[in-house]
Amino acid sequence: MDLGERVDGSREELLGELNEFLRMPSISAREDENGGFRNCAQWVAGKLEEAGAEASIMETEGHPVVYAEVGSGESTLLSYGHYDVQPPEPLDLWESDPFEPTIRDGGLYARGVADDKGDVLARIQALRLHIEEHGPLPFKLKFLIEGEEEIGSPNLAPFVRSNADLLSADACLWEGSMKNEAGRPMIFCGTKGMAYVELRARGASHDLHSMYGGIAPNPVWRLIQALRTIKDENGEITLDGLDALAEEPSEKDLEAIDRIVFDDDALLESWDVEALDRGLGGQDALREMLLRPTANIAGIHSGYTGPGSKTIVPSEAFVKMDFRLVAGQSPGPVLELIRSHLRKRGFEDIEVVDLHGVEPAKTPVDSPVVRTAIQTWQDLGEGEAVVYPTIGGSGPTSLMVAELGMPTIMTGSVANTGSRLHSPNEWVRLDDYFEAIGYFARFFERFAL
Amino acid sequence: MDLGERVDGSREELLGELNEFLRMPSISAREDENGGFRNCAQWVAGKLEEAGAEASIMETEGHPVVYAEVGSGESTLLSYGHYDVQPPEPLDLWESDPFEPTIRDGGLYARGVADDKGDVLARIQALRLHIEEHGPLPFKLKFLIEGEEEIGSPNLAPFVRSNADLLSADACLWEGSMKNEAGRPMIFCGTKGMAYVELRARGASHDLHSMYGGIAPNPVWRLIQALRTIKDENGEITLDGLDALAEEPSEKDLEAIDRIVFDDDALLESWDVEALDRGLGGQDALREMLLRPTANIAGIHSGYTGPGSKTIVPSEAFVKMDFRLVAGQSPGPVLELIRSHLRKRGFEDIEVVDLHGVEPAKTPVDSPVVRTAIQTWQDLGEGEAVVYPTIGGSGPTSLMVAELGMPTIMTGSVANTGSRLHSPNEWVRLDDYFEAIGYFARFFERFAL
Repeated sequence: MDLGERVDGSREELLGELNEFLRMPSISAREDENGGFRNCAQWVAGKLEEAGAEASIMETEGHPVVYAEVGSGESTLLSYGHYDVQPPEPLDLWESDPFEPTIRDGGLYARGVADDKGDVLARIQALRLHIEEHGPLPFKLKFLIEGEEEIGSPNLAPFVRSNADLLSADACLWEGSMKNEAGRPMIFCGTKGMAYVELRARGASHDLHSMYGGIAPNPVWRLIQALRTIKDENGEITLDGLDALAEEPSEKDLEAIDRIVFDDDALLESWDVEALDRGLGGQDALREMLLRPTANIAGIHSGYTGPGSKTIVPSEAFVKMDFRLVAGQSPGPVLELIRSHLRKRGFEDIEVVDLHGVEPAKTPVDSPVVRTAIQTWQDLGEGEAVVYPTIGGSGPTSLMVAELGMPTIMTGSVANTGSRLHSPNEWVRLDDYFEAIGYFARFFERFAL
Repeated sequence: MDLGERVDGSREELLGELNEFLRMPSISAREDENGGFRNCAQWVAGKLEEAGAEASIMETEGHPVVYAEVGSGESTLLSYGHYDVQPPEPLDLWESDPFEPTIRDGGLYARGVADDKGDVLARIQALRLHIEEHGPLPFKLKFLIEGEEEIGSPNLAPFVRSNADLLSADACLWEGSMKNEAGRPMIFCGTKGMAYVELRARGASHDLHSMYGGIAPNPVWRLIQALRTIKDENGEITLDGLDALAEEPSEKDLEAIDRIVFDDDALLESWDVEALDRGLGGQDALREMLLRPTANIAGIHSGYTGPGSKTIVPSEAFVKMDFRLVAGQSPGPVLELIRSHLRKRGFEDIEVVDLHGVEPAKTPVDSPVVRTAIQTWQDLGEGEAVVYPTIGGSGPTSLMVAELGMPTIMTGSVANTGSRLHSPNEWVRLDDYFEAIGYFARFFERFAL
């Protein structure tokens, strides 16, 4: 009996375990009042033990990390995932209880099923089936499963730094790949960095009657004057020195990007817009997303925003911006660029608040672990995997890449691009879930070669 | 006994009546669920009857108008005021209950005391004392006291048009003067117009993950691109055709403005700012406020505005703007200017919602009623009144000036420039309240001459 048959023969049991996992509302943004969150960590450790690993709960300043080891051999693989989930709100948009997994039309709906519980458990189940089929694992597999990814992994960096030897490996299998709109598996070899800032402007000490609108300092206009120096009237980023920090993409990165088919129409339809920003399209849009930083406005607020009209000059205004960064652009120096850019133009009065920083990280697209990932997909008879030098999003992969010096990729997917991560009605295709178990088991086999 | 002594002798009674009035939370922006709002109108009508007038409640599509008449003679004066008040929020910034009038350090604190209940009642009390002192009023005095001023007087124009004969008069005493920082009374001979609009931009049909920040249409940036065509980087208004509409100020207006001493320092201190907008100061700031239109941003909102960071490309954004207009700039044509200005620059996608329009209006600074107002202040032994050709704020005075053809001014003041109209801890000096009663009584005497 091969491993695919084993998975098919155990679907009910495998799904039963997943449902158990999904029923635990491990929302990291909430207080763990009755210990339910910690129970979830213990449940994961238990599953790892059942699969044959030695698991332990390791404390941090926040929620605990589940760590496990299994197998022995010349090479070592580190698997990263997280057992916490996003809050389910807004609840009224869910078609079924977010913490009561429900099957509809071949899809499994629950908070966390795509991000990241499905992935976490599929890897553990793959390990168990692999050992049942082939005996002891001929390489060392380490699991690092944290409980704070959805609140920005505030304790991951100190944990990784304190446990560098424990975590050392030849490669890291990160969480979070998915299948694209055409059903093709995607392999991501990097993540963008991020500098998340809030710019704050102040006017008078209180809202003023707008009869003074011509002479009173208006903090919204002030912010706009500052923002217009950050993007020009064509929407191009004009932040001093940002481009100079960026590393040139490698030839191999560019070739990989050229092989990706970017489906503008699918995006336009799913977003219900007529055009992308600045009229971008096709490979230009793709290169923009993967090779260029952003200066996104995620939120802005000032003054009166209720119904109808209120005539005031607001007292203060703020804008929240995330700058997604490419290789070479670390959040610390970028924050300094933002500050000096504004200072140089006379905007010393605008406060720049550092809310969050993430380093960019990249693994070469021709690394051995990327080849393993591609070949595993070939073994499964799936269409050719699409290799992305980076993803448009960010994550703390630089902890592995830069601090631990290991190639780090995302491959294997319970999710698809429509899985509604962080949104109501998060779901995965059941078939994709079982395929992922087979994928990870096969990946372990190939990794040992 | 002269009238000033009468006022002094009745302080307790006069103040008791005012407190009764202030305790009624006549917030026009709220539903009148238990009829409390209507009770307030009836209370005002009752006070007018007590003062000797014939009062009636006149219905409109919204809150009722209190109308009253008293006296007879060759000339007629119309007094305009309102019995509604602004909502008191934010409540936590009030040092005492906004609807429980409280005396602190010679000041009376309550919502509406400065705008406009103090003014309304001071005129009614002045009428009563005047009749007690001098007998029947030797001219016709009409009161128009509406209940919707704080929500933009939506039913005043139809009311005035339907009752043009009833309201006809030789002059109109509008609500809303005040004393300046130096304690000198101000007389206003005009109001600015206003075009209040909301500009709305749309992106994707739902908030997107900001990994798409480089290629997804961002409605905040879109608004900013539009707004940067409305003011240049120096903060000067660049709206096509706005200046061309403005009428040249008269020589007399300019002379009046030259006589006004503009106290920058007092404003800077009361606002707790280091400089006015664009470094304006002195007479330049005054001319800007009185003779130039504004393009004020009263509010803006989009996306995530809670604590910390959330990484989205928002789905929609809006900005609320009030354009204060000078003589010649009617809100209708200005709205068209805004629309065509944006259309011409490719911003057809930005929706321009017309929220409110007010016509500018002016009464010549050398009108007889202005002279009466100045002389009344001289009679009271106050410092010379400061005559403003217009105020920076707006109001529906054009209904009187343009539609009914009567000179309309603001004079007499329970308020001072620090009275926090529309803000928490609204207040007036008790002495100013009693002086205002004397002022209005004296104004009635002079008007009859």
